[in-house]
Amino acid sequence: MPNLDLEYEQMLSIVGRRLQPNAIRKLTLLLGSKEVISLAAGAPSYETFPTEELAEIAARVIRERGRFSLQYGPTRGQGALVDAVTELLSKRGIEGCKPSQIVMTTGSQQGLDLISRIILDPGDVALVELPSYIGGLIALHNAQAETVGVRQDDGGIVISDLRERIDQLQSQGRRVKCIYTIPNFQNPSGVTLAADRRKQLIEIADEHDLLIIEDDAYFDLYFTEEASRLVPLAALRPDRVVYLGTFSKVLAPGLRTAWLRAPEQLAAKVELAKEGADLSSSVFDQAIVVESIRDGLIERRLPELRKFYQIRCAAMLDALTRFAPAGSRWTKPIGGFFILMELAAGTDSAALLLDAIESGVAYVPGQPFFVDGSGANTLRLAYSKESTAAIADGVERMCRVFQNARAQAQG
Amino acid sequence: MPNLDLEYEQMLSIVGRRLQPNAIRKLTLLLGSKEVISLAAGAPSYETFPTEELAEIAARVIRERGRFSLQYGPTRGQGALVDAVTELLSKRGIEGCKPSQIVMTTGSQQGLDLISRIILDPGDVALVELPSYIGGLIALHNAQAETVGVRQDDGGIVISDLRERIDQLQSQGRRVKCIYTIPNFQNPSGVTLAADRRKQLIEIADEHDLLIIEDDAYFDLYFTEEASRLVPLAALRPDRVVYLGTFSKVLAPGLRTAWLRAPEQLAAKVELAKEGADLSSSVFDQAIVVESIRDGLIERRLPELRKFYQIRCAAMLDALTRFAPAGSRWTKPIGGFFILMELAAGTDSAALLLDAIESGVAYVPGQPFFVDGSGANTLRLAYSKESTAAIADGVERMCRVFQNARAQAQG
Repeated sequence: MPNLDLEYEQMLSIVGRRLQPNAIRKLTLLLGSKEVISLAAGAPSYETFPTEELAEIAARVIRERGRFSLQYGPTRGQGALVDAVTELLSKRGIEGCKPSQIVMTTGSQQGLDLISRIILDPGDVALVELPSYIGGLIALHNAQAETVGVRQDDGGIVISDLRERIDQLQSQGRRVKCIYTIPNFQNPSGVTLAADRRKQLIEIADEHDLLIIEDDAYFDLYFTEEASRLVPLAALRPDRVVYLGTFSKVLAPGLRTAWLRAPEQLAAKVELAKEGADLSSSVFDQAIVVESIRDGLIERRLPELRKFYQIRCAAMLDALTRFAPAGSRWTKPIGGFFILMELAAGTDSAALLLDAIESGVAYVPGQPFFVDGSGANTLRLAYSKESTAAIADGVERMCRVFQNARAQAQG
Repeated sequence: MPNLDLEYEQMLSIVGRRLQPNAIRKLTLLLGSKEVISLAAGAPSYETFPTEELAEIAARVIRERGRFSLQYGPTRGQGALVDAVTELLSKRGIEGCKPSQIVMTTGSQQGLDLISRIILDPGDVALVELPSYIGGLIALHNAQAETVGVRQDDGGIVISDLRERIDQLQSQGRRVKCIYTIPNFQNPSGVTLAADRRKQLIEIADEHDLLIIEDDAYFDLYFTEEASRLVPLAALRPDRVVYLGTFSKVLAPGLRTAWLRAPEQLAAKVELAKEGADLSSSVFDQAIVVESIRDGLIERRLPELRKFYQIRCAAMLDALTRFAPAGSRWTKPIGGFFILMELAAGTDSAALLLDAIESGVAYVPGQPFFVDGSGANTLRLAYSKESTAAIADGVERMCRVFQNARAQAQG
């Protein structure tokens, strides 16, 4: 079993704010006092970090180019890295991609923050998936937008629900500005937007003049042939889509290097906003990523990364099949890090978290991911961090807690 | 003479927006076609980067702690680094400093952005020095505050002018929220806030319930015994001051590692805002800075850094004495990177920049630093980047341009 990791702090930060101070204290004590299998932290496994290669590259980048890699750099990002990202986007089918459309950011989180600040006025509506990534919701919220949820099923956004929501909002005179989506292997649900729905989504955006914010953090981490052929929304309609990608999942998140691609004029506004926000992201980390790309380090490792997460996903699905209580269901991802589990109606996954941690396993209660306040009976399970044995063990422990709660409720 | 550097892009970014497109194109062509002595770029000299030590530390930090240093980390910053900053602030005389008051940021620029977003509502007034750091002005502006300038003389902020400005604004019913100051070796003026004025500034802030945003980027880079004894405003009144510091000038700016210290409740708000803004700054860079502190690398090099910049400052002052046109004057810094030069009234330093660059030297026109639109006859000179020989040469070339312009105007 793994040691306590920093990621717990993030889980606490996310979950904690929605729990009572008392529960937080108890949670902290528990996490500090024992080893816990983490199905909570949505971080890549440190086992996937190419430590030796990165150590060598980091030292080389300083020794050979320290004069530049340790100095201030342009707000948009290192020229060589911007060029490399442009190429990478062409390979993803986004045609006519130019450096003037790219801004390098401190993780995709910064891209979400900057674009939200630019396009949203207080009271504007941003449509989001039910459930959606909390960091994205925070960015939209900080721009004083109102987030309105759209239902997802196993094929992602339910198009009829999207239409209904927009009609309803517009009939109320609300200004719907954008839709925030994670089409591939979504965080937290693990579902993927079906190919035909991608086209429908674009049509609706065209009809209602909506900007699409496409967060594609997990693009490279697919498990199936079908998933490998998924086309970004930005490839279908580049002029209507802000496309966010990152090196966090395929290299190392501690380097905090990601990008935002937007139509040229919008990218120029993002650059200006970023100048005020931090002048530039880490120049040194960008230099390391450039070298990692040049060395072929990222591309070369993708097949093994996919296998790494696929095996863990399979282990979790298998354990769920064996141990999950009757009346529960869960998603079947074709990529990424996450499974969303749904317990029987009426079960409160947040209320059971303390019991689960006492039993040696942690997860993230699902409700905070749902902007409409639903999802109390759901939870996010990450298979990205633990070994297959720990995943099986953790799922079993967790399901025992759920079974017991169920038995008590019925008894 | 040095090669063209990335910093020119920043100068262009700052100056360019205020010039005509035509002039920008010409400027770009000139900068691309010849070597220019840069008295413009306010960056530390790459000669001061401890390249070999940082290469060794970077590789070590990955090999020994890659599991943590390449992973996501807490929004507030690495625990060990936060502790180290707390200690460092105690040494600067800020008593009772606790980790809960610290947030690590992507350069001080991010601290300025986050605090501005938190404390300022649209239309609020932020008092700023005349002239002031453009990055700070942008951050305040992005929070939709109105910036109102307060005069400086050789002792920094003119206290009577500060009182007058506040009275005037309050009589107009304006809400004055904060004052943004760079008390030590200011960017761009090079002046230092006199000790007695520091106390008066605090008194005024107390009287009118103003928050002081103290940007102390150059604290460690003093040239005189007197300057070494300067006390931060945050040491005089910690509960009223947000104190910003950085490792950019004393280690390497490409690592983008800085901190913000604020009263505990305000720091908690900054942490929340930062979570939405980028989750965290580069974890890897923070790990490198921690090791640099532990190894004594930063502390040990300070005396030689001070001497490095002091020698260059002296060279610039000497060249100005020899070559400056009659009717001009300039500041005499006791630390930092900058001298502000004031040409005879009526001279437009921006209009002369193209001629200067054609003569092989670049500076930053002063007007953009003055929020009241004054300062057209001023320019910022940085002695941080070039050798003493290049500084003397550059100042001579530049002054010849100024002399010629003067002769033409008079002839």
